[in-house]
Amino acid sequence: MSIQSINVRNQFRGKVKEIIHGPVVSEIDVETPHGIVTSVITTRSVEELQLRIGSEVIALVKSTEVSIAKV
Amino acid sequence: MSIQSINVRNQFRGKVKEIIHGPVVSEIDVETPHGIVTSVITTRSVEELQLRIGSEVIALVKSTEVSIAKV
Amino acid sequence: MSIQSINVRNQFRGKVKEIIHGPVVSEIDVETPHGIVTSVITTRSVEELQLRIGSEVIALVKSTEVSIAKV
Amino acid sequence: MSIQSINVRNQFRGKVKEIIHGPVVSEIDVETPHGIVTSVITTRSVEELQLRIGSEVIALVKSTEVSIAKV
Amino acid sequence: MSIQSINVRNQFRGKVKEIIHGPVVSEIDVETPHGIVTSVITTRSVEELQLRIGSEVIALVKSTEVSIAKV
Amino acid sequence: MSIQSINVRNQFRGKVKEIIHGPVVSEIDVETPHGIVTSVITTRSVEELQLRIGSEVIALVKSTEVSIAKV
Repeated sequence: MSIQSINVRNQFRGKVKEIIHGPVVSEIDVETPHGIVTSVITTRSVEELQLRIGSEVIALVKSTEVSIAKV
Repeated sequence: MSIQSINVRNQFRGKVKEIIHGPVVSEIDVETPHGIVTSVITTRSVEELQLRIGSEVIALVKSTEVSIAKV
Repeated sequence: MSIQSINVRNQFRGKVKEIIHGPVVSEIDVETPHGIVTSVITTRSVEELQLRIGSEVIALVKSTEVSIAKV
Repeated sequence: MSIQSINVRNQFRGKVKEIIHGPVVSEIDVETPHGIVTSVITTRSVEELQLRIGSEVIALVKSTEVSIAKV
Repeated sequence: MSIQSINVRNQFRGKVKEIIHGPVVSEIDVETPHGIVTSVITTRSVEELQLRIGSEVIALVKSTEVSIAKV
Repeated sequence: MSIQSINVRNQFRGKVKEIIHGPVVSEIDVETPHGIVTSVITTRSVEELQLRIGSEVIALVKSTEVSIAKV
């Protein structure tokens, strides 16, 4: 189902650089202009989205999931 | 308590650009090379961390919280 | 930015029934064919998505965020 | 420990339709009136809850974990 | 709806010590034998659960939501 | 990168008691005064943090991830 727009404010566009496949979840590393963003999603989703190395994707993060640290 | 290192793989370093204060939670917008990263944390934490416009911070996101969409 | 497909497996389609506005986050109650699904998102997102009573939306939940209880 | 009531507003009652076992986490697909609700929990929890195909369960989702998209 | 058991492995039993009410979400501080555990839930849930100072509760955290840092 | 302080209000200090390794994520059980706190993080992070049985760590939980149940 195509989505017109989503509330998720943090969107990082890039290409899939690496996939580590697991039996239930897989790690997806997305290369964005400013570094790697790492995601863990169900392996079923990886198959349904037909994610491959080089796939153009957006990594999405809801604001309530973002913590803040002071350096 | 100072932390030497943390498992959280997604770390976006930047400066606080805007704070929207609420009675319980507050929105923190961090200007990073990726663009604005938005976080929602407790207002108490904002006070305890003494976050101000310009504060140097890291926005942290656990990989399991990152979704992936195809464009 | 329009999204072709997303890894998020749990998608509940419905209409916005109620919005409780707050200074930082707002509660959105979505009426689906099988009951209300409640979401809390940033108030900014509510404005940017121009959510109103009756707006057609999808409530999305990542699998890792779903707990299981026995009755 | 039996729980009388919980803050989690989104509760989807149904029966376990499928379990994909992994060494650390497992995927649980619950057949509900909404359709399939997918959860990823620790494999230890699957064993402790003695989840089987057909087990009566509730899938629980905290409101802050629900995103909203416009179609 | 009473729940017999839940997958959530991290359960901290205690009494409500403080509630900070907001229009949409509220902060609940739970005094446990080993310190305060802080939760942010919808204000509606606070009302429906009839949470008061001194209410006996369990704070619940799903394992996938727990990060690990080295000191 | 060393972190001076973090917004995460729930911090449980302890020692790693057990690690269940998986291809993508691993379960970390931390022995704390509260009892065992269980975390699921990426296996890569386990390696990068060089987590071993006995490692001194802090388990961190954002307040928005904590649910409340009545007993």
